[in-house]
Amino acid sequence: MADTARVTLADIAAEAGVSLATVSKVLNGRPDVSSSTRARLEEHLAQHGYKRRTASQHSEYIELVFHELEPSWSMEVIEGVEQVAHAAGLSVVLTVSGDRHAPAADWVDGVLRRRPTGVVLVFSDITEGFREKLRSRSIPFVIVDPAGDPSPDVPSVGSANWSGGLMATRHLIDLGHRRIAAITGPEDMMCSLARVDGYRSAMNAAGIEIDPSLIRFGDFHTTGGERHARDLLALADPPTAIFAGSDLQALGAIAAGTAAGLRVPDDLSVVGYDDIALSRWMSPQLTTVHQPLKRMGEEAARLALRLASGSTVDTPRMDLATHLVVRESTAPPRR
Amino acid sequence: MADTARVTLADIAAEAGVSLATVSKVLNGRPDVSSSTRARLEEHLAQHGYKRRTASQHSEYIELVFHELEPSWSMEVIEGVEQVAHAAGLSVVLTVSGDRHAPAADWVDGVLRRRPTGVVLVFSDITEGFREKLRSRSIPFVIVDPAGDPSPDVPSVGSANWSGGLMATRHLIDLGHRRIAAITGPEDMMCSLARVDGYRSAMNAAGIEIDPSLIRFGDFHTTGGERHARDLLALADPPTAIFAGSDLQALGAIAAGTAAGLRVPDDLSVVGYDDIALSRWMSPQLTTVHQPLKRMGEEAARLALRLASGSTVDTPRMDLATHLVVRESTAPPRR
Repeated sequence: MADTARVTLADIAAEAGVSLATVSKVLNGRPDVSSSTRARLEEHLAQHGYKRRTASQHSEYIELVFHELEPSWSMEVIEGVEQVAHAAGLSVVLTVSGDRHAPAADWVDGVLRRRPTGVVLVFSDITEGFREKLRSRSIPFVIVDPAGDPSPDVPSVGSANWSGGLMATRHLIDLGHRRIAAITGPEDMMCSLARVDGYRSAMNAAGIEIDPSLIRFGDFHTTGGERHARDLLALADPPTAIFAGSDLQALGAIAAGTAAGLRVPDDLSVVGYDDIALSRWMSPQLTTVHQPLKRMGEEAARLALRLASGSTVDTPRMDLATHLVVRESTAPPRR
Repeated sequence: MADTARVTLADIAAEAGVSLATVSKVLNGRPDVSSSTRARLEEHLAQHGYKRRTASQHSEYIELVFHELEPSWSMEVIEGVEQVAHAAGLSVVLTVSGDRHAPAADWVDGVLRRRPTGVVLVFSDITEGFREKLRSRSIPFVIVDPAGDPSPDVPSVGSANWSGGLMATRHLIDLGHRRIAAITGPEDMMCSLARVDGYRSAMNAAGIEIDPSLIRFGDFHTTGGERHARDLLALADPPTAIFAGSDLQALGAIAAGTAAGLRVPDDLSVVGYDDIALSRWMSPQLTTVHQPLKRMGEEAARLALRLASGSTVDTPRMDLATHLVVRESTAPPRR
């Protein structure tokens, strides 16, 4: 591999047998280059570890990518990113990828054309090839709450999911509950696993045997929470308390409880997760784990700007604290 | 005034005594031109009614401007705009202006640099000077649910606010309520006025005298709804039903009712407005006026794209229908 400090675009153009203009087009995501030339040049760029010196001299954007827009949840992250961008004189480009695991290929070309100061990906990951493309253009990216196990070298901002699961479950145990169910997110998302592991640890620490039939993986939506809660409440020995993976799931669980003739919290305790703005306006007001969504957006945007300015970051992974907010949806069990 | 079809940038440059490059910089919002030169050139451009032929040959954006991000409300509009933009191969640039009446001046220069295909303003208006700047660059803009009385020539997408107020109030009257209060938004927003006028018309049509002390203007937030409802319920002859200007205000009103020892809907009926995604997950499920927020975002984005493609639009104002969704927060009065 060549000395990365000394390789120039002219070297790469000569080596690949194309003009300097073609290299520039590929770097900037312009369309009029054949895909084979483009792929060959990307290989040369990666081989040499080429890195553009300053990506952002004219940049006006932070690029914010969601795999889906979830009304109550996404907005807090958007607010955090927007505030930091605004303070830095930047606009936010919002993209919805539609895929939880990676944004579409045409999105990446768009990013190369737009040359944002940085990219913030929410609940999403990008392939190794995309990472290399962004790296060679000196466009830093930061992931908010990764869906899987992030590579240790990928900058990311999360929150203390395990502690959140532990606190929620310990609260229910302290109230006297023993039959405690957990409804969480998809099984392939680290945050789901971490929360359920926190649940398990709290149960183990209290010497309560864990009934696998009380643990349900699903999505983070109301309808999923309602469905799982309905199934759980139909068990021969139903739970007296449910730890839900999101406030939306908690709302669904409360609806299922009400439909089954149970009152919350008298007959059924429910703990949510996220502490969305509306959770204190629900009836009963929701006991929930506060996840600092807005601050996660802020920190991710700040980290992206710091990386864009050339700073190195010692610990690219940052977990913000969660805490339990006790309101009205939890109470001691009747039996 | 000169013939607009024939004036060229070279003419304008000569007339103003500057180089063509300077004119181009001003058109594109570039920073390195003095503000006096900029202002002089804008005047010449406006005098000649200069209009760039194609603003969008390289455009990649729809610019979406909010004066504030309201979690449950804004996201539906964003979703609508994003979907239309995505289908057209465009990204969405999101700006929060922080001012209900007009985005900041530096935002306009940003728009001129970015040269979006179109601008969608939510709950906001722009000054005549900004309009002229966008017009001369052939950047169309569309307003979603204007805060004031929009000029008839400004393309805008709203919803049937008056009908919404009428339907909500008529529903309460049909249930047997006579002491009906209305909490709405700011007095200087057309949508607030239209909804209250709908309320008045329903009351008048039913021959019920309107008590001015039962009509409250405020903001559209939960806390405002709670405060007004608390005051209303403390009246010597309190209302038995409240028509709230937003679902958030309705949540605040329900909280105030509960705090006053009233049950909803047994002791107090509450109708919301908007039908946000969570309103059917509230307890009681909210009776509310459905405002098609997502579709309003879609239609505004479509209208902006249509204008950008050079189409003329006969009726620049479009009001989408609202309808009442009866759920659990309304019932006949006890007395």
